[in-house]
This record gives sequence, structure tokens and C-alpha cells, in this order.
Amino acid sequence: MFDFTATYTDQYELAMGQAYLLAGRKDQSAVFDYFFRKNPFKGGYTIFAGLPDLLTVLENFRFDKEDLDFLKAQSFHPDYLTYLENFRFTGTIYSPPEGDLVFPTSPVLRVEGNLIETQLIETVLLNILNFQSLIATKASRMRLVAKDGVLIDFGLRRAQGLGGYYASRAAVIGGFDATSNVRAARDYNLRVSGTMAHSYVQSHESELEAFRSFAAARPEDCVLLVDTYNTLKSGLPNAITVAKEMEKKGHRLKGIRLDSGDLAYLAHKSRTMLDEAGLHFVKIAASNQLDEYVIRSLMAQGAPIDVFGVGTSLVTGQPDAALDGVYKLAQADHRPVIKLSENVSKITLPDKKQVWRAIDDRSLFLGADAVGLENEKHIAVIHHPFIPHQSF
Amino acid sequence: MFDFTATYTDQYELAMGQAYLLAGRKDQSAVFDYFFRKNPFKGGYTIFAGLPDLLTVLENFRFDKEDLDFLKAQSFHPDYLTYLENFRFTGTIYSPPEGDLVFPTSPVLRVEGNLIETQLIETVLLNILNFQSLIATKASRMRLVAKDGVLIDFGLRRAQGLGGYYASRAAVIGGFDATSNVRAARDYNLRVSGTMAHSYVQSHESELEAFRSFAAARPEDCVLLVDTYNTLKSGLPNAITVAKEMEKKGHRLKGIRLDSGDLAYLAHKSRTMLDEAGLHFVKIAASNQLDEYVIRSLMAQGAPIDVFGVGTSLVTGQPDAALDGVYKLAQADHRPVIKLSENVSKITLPDKKQVWRAIDDRSLFLGADAVGLENEKHIAVIHHPFIPHQSF
Repeated sequence: MFDFTATYTDQYELAMGQAYLLAGRKDQSAVFDYFFRKNPFKGGYTIFAGLPDLLTVLENFRFDKEDLDFLKAQSFHPDYLTYLENFRFTGTIYSPPEGDLVFPTSPVLRVEGNLIETQLIETVLLNILNFQSLIATKASRMRLVAKDGVLIDFGLRRAQGLGGYYASRAAVIGGFDATSNVRAARDYNLRVSGTMAHSYVQSHESELEAFRSFAAARPEDCVLLVDTYNTLKSGLPNAITVAKEMEKKGHRLKGIRLDSGDLAYLAHKSRTMLDEAGLHFVKIAASNQLDEYVIRSLMAQGAPIDVFGVGTSLVTGQPDAALDGVYKLAQADHRPVIKLSENVSKITLPDKKQVWRAIDDRSLFLGADAVGLENEKHIAVIHHPFIPHQSF
Repeated sequence: MFDFTATYTDQYELAMGQAYLLAGRKDQSAVFDYFFRKNPFKGGYTIFAGLPDLLTVLENFRFDKEDLDFLKAQSFHPDYLTYLENFRFTGTIYSPPEGDLVFPTSPVLRVEGNLIETQLIETVLLNILNFQSLIATKASRMRLVAKDGVLIDFGLRRAQGLGGYYASRAAVIGGFDATSNVRAARDYNLRVSGTMAHSYVQSHESELEAFRSFAAARPEDCVLLVDTYNTLKSGLPNAITVAKEMEKKGHRLKGIRLDSGDLAYLAHKSRTMLDEAGLHFVKIAASNQLDEYVIRSLMAQGAPIDVFGVGTSLVTGQPDAALDGVYKLAQADHRPVIKLSENVSKITLPDKKQVWRAIDDRSLFLGADAVGLENEKHIAVIHHPFIPHQSF
């Protein structure tokens, strides 16, 4: 993975740290809340993800020699550089488990520690949690509409650079079955999956020859891409020929993949052709600009698609680019603090807080979280954060 | 940086590689083109970026022990695993320089090598070039509208995980001046910049005290965030007080930062207040959901903003999530190949090609690239790729 060092942060975190140190405040306490203001995708929930990666990074968050040399060249104070040389994150993090549903304005995660350490981890915390939660939420939306369909992440090539590494993991947290991303599968122990590309078919004199050689190389895990030349007139007939040849050798073609055209129409036609050839066991996979809306439409059309391969929209969270998670100071040196704003939704909730989740008598979520102070013992009235008459 | 290994790829690249090896085709040649179909952001150009990172990765692209163990567990063929153990990319890449303008449908980059190596690098090539080109293009759009304004990347916290690492670099390729991302600045030798956060102000008993301590810690590089409580009634007056105190000690306040509200209005008011206090040298920085459209609007309103800090929209390329770059086989075993499609814009251009860039007599780009076969010597007629009557 990435060799995170403690310069994986914004410059101002380091500048503030120096100011705290030089003012003799390095041991003063601080409490920060991580929360977000809006569910992504105009949806009603967010899936919390990224916690294990964050904790791994924080356990090893230190400044290496290159970092310190760079900061020295940026004229940071010698006393501060000495402090950073021995820096470790020693604070405490209170968090829900990964995969939990979380909601806007309610504190998701609380960080307690000294002023400097809690400030220095802000950027990496936001960077990891905002992104993985975005992608896990996106994945879960596809899981909801795909029902029992197999969902596979195909996104690495369109991911935002190295963002693809975490995206594949977050997709599985959100409900995906597998990924084409081999490195992420290796490191996170995910199921890996893949088919073939057009180039493979093109590199052969004929499509039939290409299918035969691919089946010979991977008889137990063979999915044939059928749209290089013409899906129904060439790809399907050739795939059926090869499937029958495989059967004679005791193998079964695992599936075909549709990657262009009207996927619902082609899936219906393909299913019929496969079934008529006695190939009921051959699965149909579909890809090409899928997202939760296209998958829902395909399901509504009764398209006999068994496997959905999703790329760009999954690994980038399109059309949303980021969860708007923020990290705000709630207490400094045991004193509750607030950030004011003319926009009421941007005023922060001061002090140490706790969150109650209201459940009904079947232990199902009632649809409301209540935020109280840490030392409050019970809830009498729940106030809506911005709309007084919606309190109850 | 990330410890790229050759499993940073899609599973199907590896599956195809095995099929090529087992079919005895490992030494057959292949030529792939990297190109894209649509400029991002409904714009008229794309800035090509990411080449140095790609080359660094390819020079070190190999399968380590963990990779090989993982692939063995995935039942890849023993002969193939032996081949992969010694795998190196030995192909040749023809590319424009980073920062060049590139256009849809025209080949951007050509990869020549053997069938297996050219296939195995597809995913990492697309992953790096698609993303960095997207971000460099986004950055250049902001540079165009910001004119001589200073542009600083503030995006790491909202970046798509590790995508933020490359994003900061690509932003500078596209015309940004600096980044808040310390690690990227360290590794890529970028100018680093930053101010202060609301939490710093909140952690003090008063805003004035916060400004004083920050100025004391960084007298040569002090930018004060003035909107924690009230920009014009509190932040500005306190910043002016501290700026005058700094002057007496022989220092100059570098700037103030506006981070909420009507930035044009507040910048005008702030400039007036600063100037009336004799603080003409104090710069005004602005941030908060900026993109090229907001910056253009601020410029059109004559807002006296010297520095723009841009986050989410820069490092994620919002509203576009990805450049749609693809990697298509143009020649296999010295035979030109094509991918057909009912959609004419998806038919690939076969064979080895070259690109002519038409320039006028002042060496300025005329607005047309011509694609020809590699062995063509001159251009008689340029055909539009999809619209015959636009040929000339």
C-alpha cells in the first residue's frame, strides 16, 4: 500500500501545530467530531466505511527523515521539528463499526487527544473516511436494486488514480461480491473476478478461434465477451459453439458478457439462444456505464442478467465527487467551543456528545438519531436540528 | 509513494496473458493506442498529464512474492507463474510531452511490445493517465479564468482517497501555483502553502488572542482566517489589530482568508478596511466551494481576491468523474485490427498511426489534428472522423 507518513496532511495542520507548541499548549486536550452535513446521491443514508484503514495509518503515522528535511526547508521551528521527530498519535477514537448506517449532522466519530495530535490527523482522517463512505454508500445503492444479482467492481481503469485501491474495498463493504482489481483483492482478501477484453478477440484471426483459445487456457473460469464484432450474429453463435465443444471435454462455459447496445434486449435474446442450445447453466454478465439507475431499469425490464460489472460510477461515486465530511473542534482544554455561522446548518455542536439510536420493538431503526451531551442520562424530547416544529 | 506491483491491474489482463502464453504467442507483437472520445467539462481541449508517473511505475512493474502467491491461489498455470516471476515491461511508448494539448479520437500515446506485456499494463496506464489528465485539464480551466491570480490546491481532505496524491501534482501541471498537500509537495517538489483552520481560532479564549499567537509562531508566513465568528465585525478588525502590531515588530501580515458568505462582497469590504488601515500589502485569499465558474464570476464582479484556494472540484474534477480514455489494439502480430460497433464513434482506427498537428504561419495551433498511417508522407485532404461534409 501507500507508505503514509505524517506529511500526508495539509500544510496548515503543521502550521497550527507549531503555533500550539510555541505557545506552550502541546499538552492541552482537544475533542474533535467527524460528521457530514448531507447524505450523498440525494439518498437517505450513508454507510460508514474506512475505519480499519484509518486505524492502520494512525498506528504508523510518523514523520520520516524525508518529511523532516522537507519541513526544515520550509522554515519550521527547530523545537517543533524535534517534537515532530518523536511524534506519535496517542489519542483515543470513538467510532461506530464499519458498515454502520450514519446520518447527517450527528457526530459519527470522536477524536480525543492533545491539541497537536488531534489537529495533525484531520486531513488523513477526512481523506480516508469521506471517500470510503462515499463508495460504500454508492455500492449499497446498487446492491439494493440488484437484489440477488452478482455485483462486480470493474472500475480501476477509470478510478481517480490510486483512489481505485480503496474504492474496490469500500465497494465490498457496501455489498459488492467481487472486484477485478487484483492488487486490492490481494491486500484486502477480496474475491477477484474478470472476463476478457476486445483486444483478445481482435488479436486472433477470428472470434471463434479467440473463444477456443481462451476456453483452452481457462476451462474452469471462462467468460466470453461477445460484442467485438456483432453480439447476436457472431458473438453468441461462436460462444455457443465453444460451449458445446467444452461440454464434450467435461467443462462448462461459465458465462458470456454483453458490453454494448441495449443490454435488456440483448440479454433476453442471448438467454433464449443459450437455452435453446441447452446451455441453461451459462450465466449472462453485463457491463457498460452501469449505475444504480440503469441496473434498476434492467431489473424492471426483467432482463435475465446474472452478473453486473460496474466501473466508473461505482469507484468515483458519480455524480457525487465527495462526501462532505468535516472535522470540527468541540472542546479545547476542557472548555466547550462552537463555530458560529450565519448559515444555521453550519453552526457546530459544542462539547462531548453521545448519540442515541432510536429502535422500535422489533429492534429496527426508527429513523431518528438523538444527539445529547455525554453526561445526559435519558432523552425527554428530541429536537430537530434545524426545524423546530419537527421535534418530538 | 504507493508500492505499485504488477497486480495493480484487472484480473482479465492476467487471464488473457495466460491464454497468450499457453497458445505459444508470448513473443507476438502488439500495438495499442491510448485515446479518449470526449473532452471533459464540455470543454474544447484536454491537457495530457501523468506520463512521468506512468514511466516510473512501468520501469518497476513486476510481480513480487505476495503477488505470485496470490495468483497461485487463484489457480493460474504454473508455466505462467514462472513467466510472471521474470516479467518486465520491455515495450516502447510513443507519447506527446506532459502538458501538451490533446484532442478526442486522435491517438494520444502508442504502446508497442509483445502481446502479454502490452496487455498487462493497460489498467495502470489508463488509471494514471485518465485521472491526471482530467485534473490537469480542470486546473487549466481555473487558470484561464483566474488570470494572474494565485491558485492553490486545498483538496486533499475531499480527494478520492489516495487519488489526492496525484491530484495535487496534476493541478500544478494544469497551472496551479501551489498545494496544501505536504506529502505531494515533498515528493514532487511543489510549492506548499496553507493558512489556519477554524479550530485554531476556537481553541483560544478569543479570536484576537488566536491571531496574536499564530502571528507570533509564523510572523513571515501568516494568513489569518477571519470568518470563525463574524467576518466584518470580528475577523477583519482583529486581523487589522494584529497586522498593526506585527508592523511594529518589523513583520508584515501576509494575508487574510475568507471562507464563507458572499465572497465578492466580503472581499470588497475587506479590501477597503485593510486599505483604510494602511495595510495595502495584505493579500486577500478566498475559499469555499470554488470552481472555474465561481472564480469567473468573482473576477467579473471585480472582487479584489489575490489568492483562490480550491478543493473538491479541483481534485475530483467535479462534475466529471473520469476522462473516458481507452486503450485499444491497433495491430497484432503485424496485422492491423479493428473493433467494430454499431456506434460509429466506437469503431477503432486500425494499424500504426501518426498524428499531424496543423499550425498556422505564426506557429499557433490551427484547431485540427490529422491522423494518418505511420508510413504516409503528407496530407492531401483531412477527413472529419464522423461528419463527412466537415472534411477539408
